[in-house]
Amino acid sequence: MRTYLDCVPCFVRQTIDATRLVAGDGEIAERVLRRVLAATARMRMDRPPPFMGREIHRIIRQETGSEDPYASLKKRSTRTALDLVKRVESLIAAAPDPFEAAVRFAIAGNVMDYALATTWDTEKISASIEKAVSCPINTESLRLLKQSASQARDILYIGDNAGETVFDRLLIEHLPKDAVTYAVKGSPVVNDAVYSDAEDAGVGSVARIVSTGCNAPGTILDLCNPEFVDLFEAADLVIAKGQANLETLGDSRRDIFFLTQIKCAVVARDLSAQVGDWLVVHRQPADPTSASSPATQRHAAS
Amino acid sequence: MRTYLDCVPCFVRQTIDATRLVAGDGEIAERVLRRVLAATARMRMDRPPPFMGREIHRIIRQETGSEDPYASLKKRSTRTALDLVKRVESLIAAAPDPFEAAVRFAIAGNVMDYALATTWDTEKISASIEKAVSCPINTESLRLLKQSASQARDILYIGDNAGETVFDRLLIEHLPKDAVTYAVKGSPVVNDAVYSDAEDAGVGSVARIVSTGCNAPGTILDLCNPEFVDLFEAADLVIAKGQANLETLGDSRRDIFFLTQIKCAVVARDLSAQVGDWLVVHRQPADPTSASSPATQRHAAS
Repeated sequence: MRTYLDCVPCFVRQTIDATRLVAGDGEIAERVLRRVLAATARMRMDRPPPFMGREIHRIIRQETGSEDPYASLKKRSTRTALDLVKRVESLIAAAPDPFEAAVRFAIAGNVMDYALATTWDTEKISASIEKAVSCPINTESLRLLKQSASQARDILYIGDNAGETVFDRLLIEHLPKDAVTYAVKGSPVVNDAVYSDAEDAGVGSVARIVSTGCNAPGTILDLCNPEFVDLFEAADLVIAKGQANLETLGDSRRDIFFLTQIKCAVVARDLSAQVGDWLVVHRQPADPTSASSPATQRHAAS
Repeated sequence: MRTYLDCVPCFVRQTIDATRLVAGDGEIAERVLRRVLAATARMRMDRPPPFMGREIHRIIRQETGSEDPYASLKKRSTRTALDLVKRVESLIAAAPDPFEAAVRFAIAGNVMDYALATTWDTEKISASIEKAVSCPINTESLRLLKQSASQARDILYIGDNAGETVFDRLLIEHLPKDAVTYAVKGSPVVNDAVYSDAEDAGVGSVARIVSTGCNAPGTILDLCNPEFVDLFEAADLVIAKGQANLETLGDSRRDIFFLTQIKCAVVARDLSAQVGDWLVVHRQPADPTSASSPATQRHAAS
């Protein structure tokens, strides 16, 4: 996905919010904002929004001297998710289709995203968990995912946010044993999970944890390390969580299942979806012999 | 009022919205946005937000080649307001205090502001008119305004938006005859009234219309023409409409009555008010012999 004009007010707001977490509203915040504005004036709009997001959070870390402005929000997210595990596990076990239920709770966990708002919202998290069983999702893509998962021996599961990782672990428990590699960010960006966040969520007991080597939100392949790119290309099945992975890998040359909540109007419009939708999207690369337009192919693949 | 960090996402959004009115989302819009971002990276934060607003709308006009992107929104606002005149006139005439009612409708008309959203909203306008009679306002400031108006021979009424001008005319009819000078912008900015908008609203029949000589939203005195500044300093009474006038003249060296709706969280915080409040604010310059803090003096003056 390219960057749209409407992404820019959100870049600016995210800059202010993230800086405020560690540096308030003083001189440092003003310096961060001026640098981000100057960088945004030169941004590449042919790249997905997380490309600029990476630059913004690099400037914030540099100017504030904080390696991880979202550290406490991440810890709190993981604790909250761990407190919910027993209840969610029994709901999954009691469901008519435990695999589907595990997918639904993995999408529910995607609510733990602090890119759009940095304020903790217990009610929003509870509402997302309550919604898990009933929220409409694309059952055809879900059926395909279940089928692909049952046959896969080598699954790459690309994580998104800290806390959400706990729910990812519950879904991994419904994937073939010893088949899953779980990818996290190379270093902190927004509240995305890094190695320690995945470990804290217990992911290490069900999957091998690797780093993408990149610290952009989502997964920008040409900024990832070669080991990760090899895994990405070789896996039988790739599952990618969250909106930023859909923004960055949605036009990828391999097939991917995306599990996400839609949180912004720009992404919603790009996907012909609505803000608030829960999506299981199966994207396949265009058949080079086919003459179908990107729009048709996208529709056919979703 | 100074410019706050939280003004900047709004600058960016306003840039995109205003450009979209005349140039869509293509290359021109991207060029406008990049220029605005670069200018905002160097903005003066000790100046009120309309100082940057002026620069933004200058860039938009220059790059789009449109002298007045809001022209059709302004025409529509004036037409809509003129359609309401008879009804509002009879409501004012039937009110227990027609002066107070005229002030209330003048504040109601301040809803016709397209800086915050460029979409026409008939319901919002109707709701504002319906609210006029009952909305809480500061009765003590209103009493002072009525008293000052009854004694004034030389009143400067600084207008705000096109369309709102119609309601200003109805209030001017309740001010001393032949005492009012009505000030408009020197040239178009956002949907602020210029000379022709005031004429279209019938203001010319109840007041002398003059230009501030400035095309910033609000009134930035050091950018206004000397004739206007003389009027401003010499008037017995100054009434200024709208949020941007409060942002730009709120720390002025003379006493002013501001009539406005509060539309943004930054201004609301600066005034210890709420978004949605209707305000009659009487600001007086600080007594140079007084040791009171700006906060105390502001409270005492409002």
